[in-house]
Amino acid sequence: MLEHVTDADDPRLSDYTRLRDVELRKSLEAERGLFVAEGEKVIRRAIGTGHPIRSILTTRRWLASLEDVLGDATVYVASDEILSGVAGFQVHRGALASMERLPLPSVESLLKGGGRRVLVLEDLVDHANVGAIFRSAAALGVNGIILSPRCADPLYRRSVKVSMGAVFSIPYARMDDWFEGLTRLREAGFQTLALTPDQHATPMDTIMPAERVALLLGSEGDGLSSRWLEEADETVCIPMSAEAMAAGVDSLNVVAAAAIACHELMRSANEFP
Amino acid sequence: MLEHVTDADDPRLSDYTRLRDVELRKSLEAERGLFVAEGEKVIRRAIGTGHPIRSILTTRRWLASLEDVLGDATVYVASDEILSGVAGFQVHRGALASMERLPLPSVESLLKGGGRRVLVLEDLVDHANVGAIFRSAAALGVNGIILSPRCADPLYRRSVKVSMGAVFSIPYARMDDWFEGLTRLREAGFQTLALTPDQHATPMDTIMPAERVALLLGSEGDGLSSRWLEEADETVCIPMSAEAMAAGVDSLNVVAAAAIACHELMRSANEFP
Ligand SMILES: C[S@@+](CC[C@H](N)C(=O)[O-])C[C@H]1O[C@@H](n2cnc3c(N)ncnc32)[C@H](O)[C@@H]1O
Ligand SMILES: C[S@@+](CC[C@H](N)C(=O)[O-])C[C@H]1O[C@@H](n2cnc3c(N)ncnc32)[C@H](O)[C@@H]1O
Repeated sequence: MLEHVTDADDPRLSDYTRLRDVELRKSLEAERGLFVAEGEKVIRRAIGTGHPIRSILTTRRWLASLEDVLGDATVYVASDEILSGVAGFQVHRGALASMERLPLPSVESLLKGGGRRVLVLEDLVDHANVGAIFRSAAALGVNGIILSPRCADPLYRRSVKVSMGAVFSIPYARMDDWFEGLTRLREAGFQTLALTPDQHATPMDTIMPAERVALLLGSEGDGLSSRWLEEADETVCIPMSAEAMAAGVDSLNVVAAAAIACHELMRSANEFP
Repeated sequence: MLEHVTDADDPRLSDYTRLRDVELRKSLEAERGLFVAEGEKVIRRAIGTGHPIRSILTTRRWLASLEDVLGDATVYVASDEILSGVAGFQVHRGALASMERLPLPSVESLLKGGGRRVLVLEDLVDHANVGAIFRSAAALGVNGIILSPRCADPLYRRSVKVSMGAVFSIPYARMDDWFEGLTRLREAGFQTLALTPDQHATPMDTIMPAERVALLLGSEGDGLSSRWLEEADETVCIPMSAEAMAAGVDSLNVVAAAAIACHELMRSANEFP
C-alpha cells in the first residue's frame, strides 16, 4: 500500500522522527517496541531474520530495490528532502523501515543453548562500539552476547549499521539483575574472564580457557565495575607496550580489546581451520 | 587576548565553521594549514606536542580550565548556543582550538627512523577508524604509520578524538606516490604483509615476522587494491569462524583486524612483558 507524504511533520511518520536524537529514540522505541533499519541490505536481513515490518519510508528512486520483500507493508513515499528532514541526516540508500522487535531470550535460556563462548558487555554507551563488537563476535566464534541492564541497545540504528547485520544473527539477552549477573554465568558452567587494561592482570595469551568461557568487557569511560572485576574467576589483560603508557595511551578501545581476546580464545582452543 | 563573540556568523570564527561538514573542512583545513582540537585534554596534548595555537573558542564556564596554557593566543568567548551553532553539534567540554599543522616527515625519513614496525593504511575513509587504529597502534608496539595519498586525515576532529591523542604521539607520513609506495618500504628493509579477509591467505598466527614489518590494511569498502595485494611479500588473513560466513559476515572491521594483527606481531616476537 503506497502513501505519498509531502510534509516532514506528517504524523504518519512519527516512528521515524529525529533518528539522531538518542534520548528521544530510546523512549520512543521502547514504548512502541520497534527499531529502525536503514538501507536495503540491512532491511533485507531484518526481514530475513523474522522481524515484522510496521512500515517503510523511502523515495521513488529506491522503492524498486525493495519491492520483492515488502509484502503488504505500508510504504510511505517521500522526496529526499523530506526523508532527510524527518531523519535528521542524509539517509543511506534512501530507505528506512520501522520494524517490530522480537522478544529477547532470557539469560538462562541463552546460556542453556549449548554455546561455548559468550561476551558480557557492562554499560557500554557507544552504539558504534556495540555494533562493531557484534560484528567481531560473529566472525570470531562467539555464540551469544549478554548485556548489562544499562548497556547501549544493539538495535539502535547506528549499532545495526556498524554490525553489518550481525545483531540479527548472534543471539543476545539482557540481564535484569546486574548485581547477581555473574552468578547465572557460573551456574551455567562458564569460566568468567574480566578484561582490564591493568597490566598486573594475567596476560590473555597465557590463559588456559575452560570448555565454556565468558569474556567480560567494561564501559568506554570507567571500565568494569569493581564488583565484576572482583567476582570474575580471573582478571585478564592484553599486554600494551611500555611506550604507550608514556604517550598517555593507557587502554585499548573496547572494540580492539574484544577482537584480540576472541582471537586469542580461538587460537588457544586450536579452532583455526 | 579575550574577544567576545555574539553572532555565530562572525567572520572571526571562520576557522571553526561547520565542523561536521567533512568536504568543507577538508578544503578549508588544507588551505589554511590548520586543524581543530576539541576538549581540554586533546587541546593540551596538541599544545604539548608543539602545535602552535591560532585561536581558542570557548565559553565563560570552560575558560578557566585552559588558562594556564593559552599564552598570548586569541581567545573567543561565546555562549553555548553560539559555540554549538558554529560547530554544528554540542561541543565536548565547551572548548575548541584552531591549531597549526606541523610539517609531516617524508616517508623516507620516517622509515629511516629506526622503527621496526609500521602500519600502512590504504584509502581508509572513516575518520573514527583512522583514529581508533592510531590508538591501538600506540598501545601495541607500532612505531609509525604511513597513509596512502587518499587515506582519511588523522587530524580531522573526529580522528583526533577517537585516537585519544595518539595522532600526536605516533609519527606518520603521507605517500605522494601510491603506485611506487611499497617499493620505498622494501628498500628500507621492511617485510610487507598484506592483510586480507580472504581465508586462503596465510593465517596471521603462523607468520614468522622479520626484523622490520609493515602491515598493509585496506579500505572499509573494497579492501586492499589488487596492486598492493600482489606486490606484498605475503598475503595474510585472520581466521574467521565458518558460521560467520554463513551469517553473512565476511570480514572484520579494519580496526579489529589491525588490533589483532599488531597483537600477533608482539606475541610472535616475544615482546610481552
Ligand atoms: C577503554 S577501556 C576502559 C578504560 C578504563 N579506564 C579502565 O581502566 O578499565 C574499555 C574496556 O576495554 C577493555 N580493555 C581495554 N584495554 C584493555 C587491555 N589492554 N586488556 C584487556 N582489556 C582491555 C576492558 O574490558 C575495559 O573495561
Ligand atoms: C572491511 S575489510 C574490507 C573488506 C573487503 N570486502 C575485502 O575483501 O577486502 C577492511 C580491511 O580490514 C582488513 N581485514 C578485514 N578482515 C580481515 C581478516 N579476516 N583478516 C585479515 N585482514 C582483515 C583488511 O586489511 C581489509 O582490507
